[in-house]
Amino acid sequence: MTGSRAGDYRILHEAALRDYLAGVPNLAAVLGGAPASWVITEVGDGNLNLVFIVKGAGGGVAVKQALPYVRLVGESWPLPLSRAHYEYLALSRQAHLAPGLVPALLHHNEPLALTVMELLEPHIIMRKGLVAGTHYPRFVSDVTNFMARTLFFTSDLALSAAEKKEGIAAFAGNHALCKITEDLIFTDPYRVAVQNHWTVPYLNTFAASLRADMELHVAVSRLKLKFMASPEALLHGDLHTGSIMVTEGQTRVIDPEFAFYGPMGFDVGAVLANLLMAYFASAGHERSPGERRAFEGWVLETVEQVWSEFAQKFLDLWRTDAKGDAYPATLFAGEKGAARLEAERQAYIQRLFGDAVGFAGAKINRRIFGLAHNIDFELIEDPRRRAISEARAVRLARAMLVETTTFQTIADVTGAARGLRDWMPEFSN
Amino acid sequence: MTGSRAGDYRILHEAALRDYLAGVPNLAAVLGGAPASWVITEVGDGNLNLVFIVKGAGGGVAVKQALPYVRLVGESWPLPLSRAHYEYLALSRQAHLAPGLVPALLHHNEPLALTVMELLEPHIIMRKGLVAGTHYPRFVSDVTNFMARTLFFTSDLALSAAEKKEGIAAFAGNHALCKITEDLIFTDPYRVAVQNHWTVPYLNTFAASLRADMELHVAVSRLKLKFMASPEALLHGDLHTGSIMVTEGQTRVIDPEFAFYGPMGFDVGAVLANLLMAYFASAGHERSPGERRAFEGWVLETVEQVWSEFAQKFLDLWRTDAKGDAYPATLFAGEKGAARLEAERQAYIQRLFGDAVGFAGAKINRRIFGLAHNIDFELIEDPRRRAISEARAVRLARAMLVETTTFQTIADVTGAARGLRDWMPEFSN
Repeated sequence: MTGSRAGDYRILHEAALRDYLAGVPNLAAVLGGAPASWVITEVGDGNLNLVFIVKGAGGGVAVKQALPYVRLVGESWPLPLSRAHYEYLALSRQAHLAPGLVPALLHHNEPLALTVMELLEPHIIMRKGLVAGTHYPRFVSDVTNFMARTLFFTSDLALSAAEKKEGIAAFAGNHALCKITEDLIFTDPYRVAVQNHWTVPYLNTFAASLRADMELHVAVSRLKLKFMASPEALLHGDLHTGSIMVTEGQTRVIDPEFAFYGPMGFDVGAVLANLLMAYFASAGHERSPGERRAFEGWVLETVEQVWSEFAQKFLDLWRTDAKGDAYPATLFAGEKGAARLEAERQAYIQRLFGDAVGFAGAKINRRIFGLAHNIDFELIEDPRRRAISEARAVRLARAMLVETTTFQTIADVTGAARGLRDWMPEFSN
Repeated sequence: MTGSRAGDYRILHEAALRDYLAGVPNLAAVLGGAPASWVITEVGDGNLNLVFIVKGAGGGVAVKQALPYVRLVGESWPLPLSRAHYEYLALSRQAHLAPGLVPALLHHNEPLALTVMELLEPHIIMRKGLVAGTHYPRFVSDVTNFMARTLFFTSDLALSAAEKKEGIAAFAGNHALCKITEDLIFTDPYRVAVQNHWTVPYLNTFAASLRADMELHVAVSRLKLKFMASPEALLHGDLHTGSIMVTEGQTRVIDPEFAFYGPMGFDVGAVLANLLMAYFASAGHERSPGERRAFEGWVLETVEQVWSEFAQKFLDLWRTDAKGDAYPATLFAGEKGAARLEAERQAYIQRLFGDAVGFAGAKINRRIFGLAHNIDFELIEDPRRRAISEARAVRLARAMLVETTTFQTIADVTGAARGLRDWMPEFSN
């Protein structure tokens, strides 16, 4: 699927993109009609890349091209084009492991750092739907299938140690994208950093406390080390609700350019954190008190089900598809062995739950004090109301990070969130 | 340092080796005199390779060539020649990080899987000295320098995440050697495996209990997973007393062909385990009761000092040379930050201690029930006396594996060893 020679990268704006697509027969066939008639729209609202939607008489495609810098910041922050390679690689593996849950790949051009995928229509970014208060009945089932299957089948439970090491090496070069996470999630929100911002003046004292809280710094540094040195499975690496496109009946996970081998709890925690933020933001979107109670109930129920269905599916795969080198079956033969291994599975998933809780806490803080915020909170126009929602999330996040072990079940998490729903922070400003 | 073309591997026996060395000017210069006068002796007593000592009028060299199979077993067990590449790579990095503690590299030929090093003379394999009851006063200082420096400087505490990932990828291809460890240390001793052997009939019930003990299987499987999926630092990977050459005044660590990025506790535990085995074997080498008490006292003191000096040196490096991405200094500024980080260092090293204790237990069991035994025990001629020494070691190993957390300090380990010095196992046979 790779055309062109290395070294001839160029940014394809509309006219050049039209010519390019016209020259790729399978894409021209999908689009149909004369290339001059294709409607090309730049829609990238992410932080890093150019994204075009192209529509022709016969159909549409989505085109994603990496820029040699961070789009959100500009040319002053260079970022390697190789991320398109890793995204393509991850998407290919995810398509194999979790069929139907990622967009179909139509074309990839390595030197151009360009990937063409099926156009997801009428899907929208899930985060937008959550802001609007929409329920997604398929989401739990789909996202837990995606996570359980992509994480389990790339882990030592499913792979030989040699296959696993090959996988780790294949993604090791994606370190510039990992570095963004290491800095923006695990470091900058906890120190003075020029790119940090938050809802002023209300959260000023909260931001200062984040910078001064050494228990928090230890907790987040432990998670950072785990992120850097625990290649448990191939992660999506950026699995927030802005990386998920949905209709009521379909779910597609997109944008795995942060993919690498890391700790499973990071992906699971990302989903939990973004649902929890949607929950806390919801009060800020109310036009009348209690208006969104049903939605909020659905979100917390979804948090609970995401964890419990993920855990169930992951453990089921372990019971049926454990072809990896970890926990070899020959060491757990017989009834006694089976019982002891099952107890160990529960201990394993409980440890993973703790990781997910901690990572979720880190994911919340970065969206409130770091560089990249999310529309869940940002679209709350009144800054005081926004800050109230954010402060509730931040209080839960600290507990998840510092008192992780007090959350033994997912109900402990949703219970704590529910308990903070109407908590009124004291703003000194 | 690489000559020849890929694909022209051949085994260099004496005549071919002489011609080869004569053709490498710097080696011919070291050896001196006419090539025909060089004395070539095959001395490989390891399990995998050919090793020659070559002496000329001017000096000597050691030549190590990998065979395409496991020497101990034969051609039925193929093993990639690439291990010579990884050994060379590891040796180069160790020479840089721990100068004077590994043999000097003189020549490497990648296609021939051949490495020429300085001849270590009059050094002997440390294990042989331990069997003879020799004290090594330099050992603690040297081996703890080696471990602290090679482990710290290849960890996330000293490297950027990008450098660390590059290191992991550079060694990822050495998985065939890792697989040997995974099978022979973490799996086979705990199940029926044709290569297992032990001191029959005395240890038959112990071997059976190893195969039936599910708590042990869980403990060893957790360690196996940690071995496979925790690339904390560049390990030597086989750091037993047969991989260390000593005089009373010098220590050289050799044979890092099992090198890869793994959990630090594996290297540290290997040293501790092999000292503990020397301790338990000692009673079997007595010609009169109590004859080796002073040696045994030195061994246990050495166990204590290996841990405490390693921990001290590792923590000191962290205090002075923490240039890595983990635990960034900006998050621990000021007096409060410094104090909290110091507490975290202690927690980190305590966790590493637990790993070392567990891995040491696994290392002991494999030498008593697995494929590769050691002369500490094997040279005890009387099988009953040998089995008594082995049973004491095995009892400690089980505690170290299953009740790891009861060993909070290294004195807990040596105390337990001392308590088993005169324990008499009951043999049903």
